[in-house]
Amino acid sequence: MAFEFPQKVLFKHCDPAGIVFYPRYFEMMNDCLEAFFEAQLDMPWHLLHRAGAVPTAQIETRFTAPSRHGDRLLLRLQVTRVGRSSFSYEMVATCDDEQRFVTTGTLVNVNETGRPAPWPEGPRTRLEAQL
Amino acid sequence: MAFEFPQKVLFKHCDPAGIVFYPRYFEMMNDCLEAFFEAQLDMPWHLLHRAGAVPTAQIETRFTAPSRHGDRLLLRLQVTRVGRSSFSYEMVATCDDEQRFVTTGTLVNVNETGRPAPWPEGPRTRLEAQL
Amino acid sequence: MAFEFPQKVLFKHCDPAGIVFYPRYFEMMNDCLEAFFEAQLDMPWHLLHRAGAVPTAQIETRFTAPSRHGDRLLLRLQVTRVGRSSFSYEMVATCDDEQRFVTTGTLVNVNETGRPAPWPEGPRTRLEAQL
Amino acid sequence: MAFEFPQKVLFKHCDPAGIVFYPRYFEMMNDCLEAFFEAQLDMPWHLLHRAGAVPTAQIETRFTAPSRHGDRLLLRLQVTRVGRSSFSYEMVATCDDEQRFVTTGTLVNVNETGRPAPWPEGPRTRLEAQL
Repeated sequence: MAFEFPQKVLFKHCDPAGIVFYPRYFEMMNDCLEAFFEAQLDMPWHLLHRAGAVPTAQIETRFTAPSRHGDRLLLRLQVTRVGRSSFSYEMVATCDDEQRFVTTGTLVNVNETGRPAPWPEGPRTRLEAQL
Repeated sequence: MAFEFPQKVLFKHCDPAGIVFYPRYFEMMNDCLEAFFEAQLDMPWHLLHRAGAVPTAQIETRFTAPSRHGDRLLLRLQVTRVGRSSFSYEMVATCDDEQRFVTTGTLVNVNETGRPAPWPEGPRTRLEAQL
Repeated sequence: MAFEFPQKVLFKHCDPAGIVFYPRYFEMMNDCLEAFFEAQLDMPWHLLHRAGAVPTAQIETRFTAPSRHGDRLLLRLQVTRVGRSSFSYEMVATCDDEQRFVTTGTLVNVNETGRPAPWPEGPRTRLEAQL
Repeated sequence: MAFEFPQKVLFKHCDPAGIVFYPRYFEMMNDCLEAFFEAQLDMPWHLLHRAGAVPTAQIETRFTAPSRHGDRLLLRLQVTRVGRSSFSYEMVATCDDEQRFVTTGTLVNVNETGRPAPWPEGPRTRLEAQL
């Protein structure tokens, strides 16, 4: 039930060593999450951010092999835990069959004042269906 | 014995929610590490990268409070482990007395072919002095 | 004969004012050029950069209306001049029928030492066909 | 009367060709403008953006020589025209005595609804003193 997000490694992602600069990986992960919210939760971020946000509370990544310009990555996002106002996920990036990184993270749904807010019923149901 | 790196939160760091976009935090952490290598290890990255690199193998961050445009952050880097060709660190960012994030990470010294390479004697001595 | 490149405005592109931060527009333009080189000139950048580069020599942009998170932009690239080792282009971005920016730029094909190098015959023919 | 802004070329600024990726130059220019507003106009952007913005309307850059990792750039900003709700500037970046880029740009003071708003009297007086 993983959500798949393809991402080609572009010129802008790469550093003088010719490999992806890791802050750019975190942008890719964020793009994957943004696509996931729209496609799977029906919570497009440009609407969600009118009255709240979904900040990342914790994130951990192991970079297991470098990625180079032109590589075609596939990011796979799997929800691993659904809380009242948060969820945790694992995201694995591969190129062909080689793993490039593994991330685990937790993000929180907050309201306009930055306080945790329960998932609305629709998104909660969809999140639980991802488990 | 922590290395201190001040970083004002600039316009470019902030997202539509008015807080630091977390991939930008990873750029700040990387800037802090780049300054640490030059100031404390005498390994400026523009020289180091002529014949190697210091990729991040693992990184974990807990974001404990949001940072806003104009905040004056202080990043404190503490070496926590020195290996043959790697080291681990803890990095804590505060604004006044409020903690904003805590990161632990490990990076590896690699040669031109991407293989782990032992720290040269000078940097190793300086790293161990940081413990 | 314009080359079309769709680009949705994502969270990462937007600033605290809720509109695209203009350095991010320059990343979009660069992504459009990277796609153009691969699709139209058969010069994918990950191969081209093994023995050269295509730095931008000059670029000018007028930002005619702001773009917001969620907007679906269309960038249209039109080659306007083909030189021995350079070309000029116009790039216009629209959202529905509203123009967002107009860029004109010139980039140069350089060899490993950074000197201008004539376009290879294939890409030159393809560039001229774009006029 | 130029405003000076030093900027070391860091790892994050550089691309696989080992030189500054030009969208990163636009971030540097923006950082220079942010510092100028605070130091010279007494309009720190984190306050200014509570009730308005200063979007760039037009910008043109000629990149005259590449910048490499470790280079110490000096950006010099000179106001060239003060309008009712806008100003134009020239920004020249050098490393030692070598010019790296020349930018001319115009930005506009806008209110919360995005409409041009006259400069407040203090900043206007300071802008005119820069001419």
